[in-house]
Amino acid sequence: MINIKSIKPLSDRVLIRPVSKEEKTESGIIIPDTAKEEKPQEGEVLSVGPGKLSESGERLPLGIKAGDKVMFRKYSPDELEVGKETLLIISESDILAIIG
Amino acid sequence: MINIKSIKPLSDRVLIRPVSKEEKTESGIIIPDTAKEEKPQEGEVLSVGPGKLSESGERLPLGIKAGDKVMFRKYSPDELEVGKETLLIISESDILAIIG
Amino acid sequence: MINIKSIKPLSDRVLIRPVSKEEKTESGIIIPDTAKEEKPQEGEVLSVGPGKLSESGERLPLGIKAGDKVMFRKYSPDELEVGKETLLIISESDILAIIG
Amino acid sequence: MINIKSIKPLSDRVLIRPVSKEEKTESGIIIPDTAKEEKPQEGEVLSVGPGKLSESGERLPLGIKAGDKVMFRKYSPDELEVGKETLLIISESDILAIIG
Amino acid sequence: MINIKSIKPLSDRVLIRPVSKEEKTESGIIIPDTAKEEKPQEGEVLSVGPGKLSESGERLPLGIKAGDKVMFRKYSPDELEVGKETLLIISESDILAIIG
Amino acid sequence: MINIKSIKPLSDRVLIRPVSKEEKTESGIIIPDTAKEEKPQEGEVLSVGPGKLSESGERLPLGIKAGDKVMFRKYSPDELEVGKETLLIISESDILAIIG
Amino acid sequence: MINIKSIKPLSDRVLIRPVSKEEKTESGIIIPDTAKEEKPQEGEVLSVGPGKLSESGERLPLGIKAGDKVMFRKYSPDELEVGKETLLIISESDILAIIG
Repeated sequence: MINIKSIKPLSDRVLIRPVSKEEKTESGIIIPDTAKEEKPQEGEVLSVGPGKLSESGERLPLGIKAGDKVMFRKYSPDELEVGKETLLIISESDILAIIG
Repeated sequence: MINIKSIKPLSDRVLIRPVSKEEKTESGIIIPDTAKEEKPQEGEVLSVGPGKLSESGERLPLGIKAGDKVMFRKYSPDELEVGKETLLIISESDILAIIG
Repeated sequence: MINIKSIKPLSDRVLIRPVSKEEKTESGIIIPDTAKEEKPQEGEVLSVGPGKLSESGERLPLGIKAGDKVMFRKYSPDELEVGKETLLIISESDILAIIG
Repeated sequence: MINIKSIKPLSDRVLIRPVSKEEKTESGIIIPDTAKEEKPQEGEVLSVGPGKLSESGERLPLGIKAGDKVMFRKYSPDELEVGKETLLIISESDILAIIG
Repeated sequence: MINIKSIKPLSDRVLIRPVSKEEKTESGIIIPDTAKEEKPQEGEVLSVGPGKLSESGERLPLGIKAGDKVMFRKYSPDELEVGKETLLIISESDILAIIG
Repeated sequence: MINIKSIKPLSDRVLIRPVSKEEKTESGIIIPDTAKEEKPQEGEVLSVGPGKLSESGERLPLGIKAGDKVMFRKYSPDELEVGKETLLIISESDILAIIG
Repeated sequence: MINIKSIKPLSDRVLIRPVSKEEKTESGIIIPDTAKEEKPQEGEVLSVGPGKLSESGERLPLGIKAGDKVMFRKYSPDELEVGKETLLIISESDILAIIG
C-alpha cells in the first residue's frame, strides 16, 4: 500500500485531503454529485511539488505549503486511494485561497 | 466557520463582497438571473492575492487593493458561503474598473 | 450614483462614451441592433487604464489618451449605466484608430 | 465628417484604400461576394500604426509604409465609410506582399 | 526485437512499465477499460529523456529518474510492445507524483 | 499588370511558382482537386520576405532563398494571378524541405 | 526524379524511411489502416533539419541525427514519393524515442 508521506507531487501539483461536509441542504434535500462539484471545496494540503520549471530552468516556488487549509475548485481532480482515504492531486492554479 | 479576515486569495485572485442592487427594472419586471449575470456588477474588494508569479519568479503586483469599490463581470465566479454572506473569488483580470 | 470622473479602468481598458449616429439608412430602413454591432463605432475616450503589466512587472503604456476620438469594434462591450448615460469599457486592442 | 488624413491606425493596423477590379470573369459571369472575399485583394496603404508594443515596451515597427501598394486577404476587415469611399482597417499580418 | 535498455525517450518523455492491478471491484464487477483509463495508474520509470529544449537552447532537466515509482494519468499513451511486455511512453507533464 | 520581380512578400512569407505534375494516377483516373491538396507539392521559390519580427525587434531570417526548389503543403495558399501564371504566397512554416 | 540525398528538411523537420512490419495480427486478421495509424511506428532517420529558430535568432539543435532508428506517431505525416519509396517528413516533436 502507498504511504501518504512517500507521495511527492511533481511540478506545481499539490496533494490534498478533502474535508467532508454536511451534504444535506437546509431543506434536507441531498445535493447530487454533479451539483456539488461546481462549488469550491475545502481541503488540507498534505504536500506540495517543487514548482513548475521556468524557461531559465528555475523552479517557481508555490504559494502554499503543507498544513494549509485551502478552498479549491474540483472539476476532475486525480483521485488516489490510499488505504480507506481518497486523496486528490490538483494543480496549485486550481486553489483559490488559503482559509486557515 | 471560516473567518473572512483569514481568507487569503492566491495568485492574482481577489475576494469580493458583491453589492446587491435593486433587481426590478423601471417597468417593475424582475430580471432573471441569467440576464443579470451578463452585466457588470459592483463589489467591494476584501482582500487581494500576492499576484501571479512571472517567469523570473517575481510576484506581479495587483492594481487594486482591499477597500476598493470595483465593477466586475460575473460569469461563473467561485462562491464562498461565509456565515450568511456569499462572497466571490475572481481573478483581477475580470475586474473592469475601480469606481470609488 | 457613480461619478464618471471616479471611474478608473484597469489594465489596458478604456472608458468610452459612444457617439450616437443617425440609425436610419438612406432608404429610411432602421438597421437592427445585430447588424449595427458588426460595424466599427465612434466614441470619445473618457479615461484610460495604466496599461497591462509586462512579464518584468512594468506597465505597458496605452497609445491613446482621454479626449481622443476613436473608432472601435463593438461586439460585447461591458456597459456601465451612469445616470442616464450608457458608457462602455473596452480593451485598447478593440480600438482600431484615432480619428480626431 | 471624418478627414482621411486625421485617421491614425493603432498598434500594427493599417488604413487601406482597396483597388476595385473588373468583377466579371472571362466567361462573363459575375463572381458573388463570398467568392471574391476568399481571394487576395489589392489596395493602397494610406497610413500605418506605430506598431505593436513588445513585452519590453518598445514599438515593433511595421514593414510597410504609406504609399505602398499591397496584396491582402480580406475576410472581415473593418470598414470605415469616409464620405463616399469605403476604406479598410486591417492588421499588417493580413498583408501578404508589397506589389509596387 | 527492441532491447528495452536501448530505448531513449526524446525531450521530456519517459518510458514507463505500468503496474498491473487487481481489476475486479469489491463487488466483483470487472471495470471496463474506458472507466479504468480515467483513473491514475501506477508505473515504474525505466528511462527518461534529456528534457525539453528551452528558448535559449538549454535542456530543462526532468524531476524524475529511472527507478522512480510514479502515478500517472493514462488517456492515450503511446504503447510500445517489447517482447511480451507493453511499455508506455508519456510526457513528464502527465506524471502526477512520485510514490516511492 | 503586376511585375513578378516587384512582388515583395512580407514577414516570413514566400512567393512560389508551383510545378505542375502529371495528374493522372497509374490506373488513369484523374485525381480531383481536393485529394491533390492533401499531398505535398513542388515549387520554385521566387522571392522571400525579410522574416518575422522577434520580440526584440529583429527580423528572424528565413532558411530558404530565391531559386530553391521546395516541397510544401498546400491547403489554402493565397493565389496571385500574374499574367497567365498562378503564383502562390505561403508562409515559410508551410515548406517542408528543400529538394534541390 | 528527386534524389534522396538532396532533400533537406527545414526547421525541426526530419526525413524518415518507415520500417514495414508484419501487418497481420496473431489471429490472422488484417489491421485496417486507420487502426495502424494510432500506434507508434518504427523508422530510420535519413536527414534532419537545422532546428527551429529561437526568438533570439539561434537554431535550436535537434536531439536526433541521420542514422538513428526511431519510434514515431503517425497521424498525417507528409508523404514524399521518391522513386518507388514512400518517405515521410515529420516534426521532431512527433518522435517518441530513439530505439537503436
